Amino acid sequence: MHTTILDDLRRALGPEALLTDPADCARYLTDWTGQFRGTALAVVRPASTEAVAAVVKLCAASGVAITPQGGNTGVAGGGVPLGNRPHILLSLDRMKAIRRIDAAARSVTVEAGCVLQQLQEAIAPEGLIFPLMFGARGSCTIGGNLSTNAGGSNVLRYGNTRALCLGIEAVMADGSVVSDLSGLRKDNTGYDLRDLMIGAEGTLGIITAACLRLYPAPVIRATAFLALPDVASALSVLNRLQDASGGLVEAFEYMPAPMMRQICAHHGKRPPMAEPPETGILLELASTRGDDAAPDPEGTPRLQALVTEVLAGLMEEGLVADAVICASEAQRNALWQLREGAAEAIYALKGSYMFDLSLPLAAVADFVAQTDAESRALGFEVYTVAHLGDGNLHYTLAAGAGRDWAALPHTAQIDRILDRVAALGGSFSAEHGIGQAKLPYMPRYRSKARLAAMRAIKGALDPDDLFNPGKTIP
Amino acid sequence: MHTTILDDLRRALGPEALLTDPADCARYLTDWTGQFRGTALAVVRPASTEAVAAVVKLCAASGVAITPQGGNTGVAGGGVPLGNRPHILLSLDRMKAIRRIDAAARSVTVEAGCVLQQLQEAIAPEGLIFPLMFGARGSCTIGGNLSTNAGGSNVLRYGNTRALCLGIEAVMADGSVVSDLSGLRKDNTGYDLRDLMIGAEGTLGIITAACLRLYPAPVIRATAFLALPDVASALSVLNRLQDASGGLVEAFEYMPAPMMRQICAHHGKRPPMAEPPETGILLELASTRGDDAAPDPEGTPRLQALVTEVLAGLMEEGLVADAVICASEAQRNALWQLREGAAEAIYALKGSYMFDLSLPLAAVADFVAQTDAESRALGFEVYTVAHLGDGNLHYTLAAGAGRDWAALPHTAQIDRILDRVAALGGSFSAEHGIGQAKLPYMPRYRSKARLAAMRAIKGALDPDDLFNPGKTIP
Repeated sequence: MHTTILDDLRRALGPEALLTDPADCARYLTDWTGQFRGTALAVVRPASTEAVAAVVKLCAASGVAITPQGGNTGVAGGGVPLGNRPHILLSLDRMKAIRRIDAAARSVTVEAGCVLQQLQEAIAPEGLIFPLMFGARGSCTIGGNLSTNAGGSNVLRYGNTRALCLGIEAVMADGSVVSDLSGLRKDNTGYDLRDLMIGAEGTLGIITAACLRLYPAPVIRATAFLALPDVASALSVLNRLQDASGGLVEAFEYMPAPMMRQICAHHGKRPPMAEPPETGILLELASTRGDDAAPDPEGTPRLQALVTEVLAGLMEEGLVADAVICASEAQRNALWQLREGAAEAIYALKGSYMFDLSLPLAAVADFVAQTDAESRALGFEVYTVAHLGDGNLHYTLAAGAGRDWAALPHTAQIDRILDRVAALGGSFSAEHGIGQAKLPYMPRYRSKARLAAMRAIKGALDPDDLFNPGKTIP
Repeated sequence: MHTTILDDLRRALGPEALLTDPADCARYLTDWTGQFRGTALAVVRPASTEAVAAVVKLCAASGVAITPQGGNTGVAGGGVPLGNRPHILLSLDRMKAIRRIDAAARSVTVEAGCVLQQLQEAIAPEGLIFPLMFGARGSCTIGGNLSTNAGGSNVLRYGNTRALCLGIEAVMADGSVVSDLSGLRKDNTGYDLRDLMIGAEGTLGIITAACLRLYPAPVIRATAFLALPDVASALSVLNRLQDASGGLVEAFEYMPAPMMRQICAHHGKRPPMAEPPETGILLELASTRGDDAAPDPEGTPRLQALVTEVLAGLMEEGLVADAVICASEAQRNALWQLREGAAEAIYALKGSYMFDLSLPLAAVADFVAQTDAESRALGFEVYTVAHLGDGNLHYTLAAGAGRDWAALPHTAQIDRILDRVAALGGSFSAEHGIGQAKLPYMPRYRSKARLAAMRAIKGALDPDDLFNPGKTIP
């Protein structure tokens, strides 16, 4: 039977669309962290929406499951097939066309396999940006961004991937195509299939293209590194900056001292303040206003003068302890290199566990204080880097040099932290999704009513469990 | 059986929760336009989420359908029960509590029956706004806003109701409660039930409460009435204003001469320009920045000076023909009274049909030019008022004084216009929803694949068709 499906797929798509040699398939079947490995009858690489629909129909007829995959940069194993069923891996990597840039309407229609950074480079000459921003942007794809509702450091200003999408094209389990690519700003004609498919991790259908929102490129930025007296001051500082600037804050990233030291040690860099502060914040504002770029009488661009003035006021009030404002693009780049080096510096820690938590904004400060103190008392080192304006903490417990992870009470402490997050109304997966890795937490932390609704929707839209079986829904 | 369900409901909720006297029920069972009338065994007014769940369980057990209703201000008949089944009307009007204002996190948790304006007044002392803005705000409710994904004139800046909602609480068809009210900015733990329930017009469950985003109140506004040379200039004008102001445009409302004359005639007002322009635009920008409110050397607030400067540049380029900038709050109010008087002025036209269209932004100008000319050639008068920045046109055909609507080819012309909208990738219902009124257009203009997906979801979440049967899905 499996030989038949491969023959059928070859006939339908052309032989160049199928990879079956294990050497060719390997990079698709192992995730980049090396943590998840899968098997598949073949890696199938359709080059058009029609070809994706043909694959779905053939697989449906044969009962062969399909795991769709974008840039294979996920961290929850969602794009790697499980060994539970005969599977193909459907890679969108040949569907990378930018179908249409509509600069006046500030939108772009793009196929799922387009790499995020390539999209961003293609629209740059129009003076426009697609503001999704995180480490993997050089290899992740738009389809993967949508399927995981990717976040990153610009969510504060522009929202997550869901907020950046005007419409999608997707192949459903019966091979039909739902398409909504005309870029409408308002359309109240029935259920919101777009937002349902976004973040569904390929379990409800295969997103093949999308119409995305674009924004004008900023003409001026103000970037600073702040030392706050404590995390509790952070929300006031953020709100004051937002109000004074009219919502121009693009990044408000928490980088406390242990994290900063680990980044600097790992990458051989110098910190922005000689003594890294306990509550360090990477702050960035950006404006498209010409008058914000114009110099004041002292020659300082207006936006930077504004930020300086607000920070001076906050320092007088004791809400900011110290601030270094970048005076050059080189200083700004150095600061962002530290921030973007955080993930690698964390993965380099031997014996560690990284959470991707979110909390109600009002709960963040107490959570950090309590959890840091408690974890350290148990012998853990704590490394946190956070999109603090979104209440999203990448919180890492590590054993530290010369200590044995296995000898620390890590299972109990991980559970205690997750329970605390749940009790505060937070999420155990803010932006990384569920995939395989976080599936066990779903029944523990999400209500029966919610899981029942998810299962009902999955059963309705994919009754034969064709798409990415074993993921997302426990 | 029906006596039994009423007795059961009385017992469960208390007798004060049931209305059965036709005189008491009348205002719930007829919509405000007088176009839709329904019947129900009773109007049931639960006062808590638990009571709503109890009603759902009792009705499910008896096979009695439930039509939920908010402020009964919809225009598509979605909140009025059909006579196709034994029904109750479930009014949320006793659930109007504002559960929690979290000023620092810029969010509010509110029950579904709270009137929009009451919410707005309650948060005003915090210096915050909930930016949804349209004529019915004095009587529409948050639950209705969510269930219809309400739009209005501020969508350009803040998005529609869906974009303003962080989470919902809803009662599902089995009486279970899904709740997500902790106000998280990021949470990728499964399917997006929130956005699925929003805009579902009460056919998938009953929204009982929501956590909503709040924004800082502007400290300065700049309001103007513009004459453009043509609709084709509008998108360039809007984009230039957005870029120069950093996205501060809150309203960009199209009010062409015939509409302006009808509004002025109906309300006995004077137009902002002695000779109303063919392409008139009500423009408003708003800023929370203190430096935008500060006066320039001539004493003009910076934002107004900025708008004046941009408009002067656009006039030199011929993209704007004339502009009246409001110099006082009184002038601004007068302009907005005209805009807000549009609906009433349109409803006063005897013999007319109003579309609620949306189009891709690039298609608007040609659509208007072609459809205006063609409709007038057929003997219609055309009255348009539009949220032009969203591509959303309230487009009205009317017979005009002394002419007979019945004698005009209105059916054919309405169909021709709807077909044109569809061919351009537009929507036949931008913000008014489907309800009963627009149900026939669903199979005509929405694909089989989309309708099949909607039906599958409805069948999965409400297998006995308990919620608002006969609405939304054809």
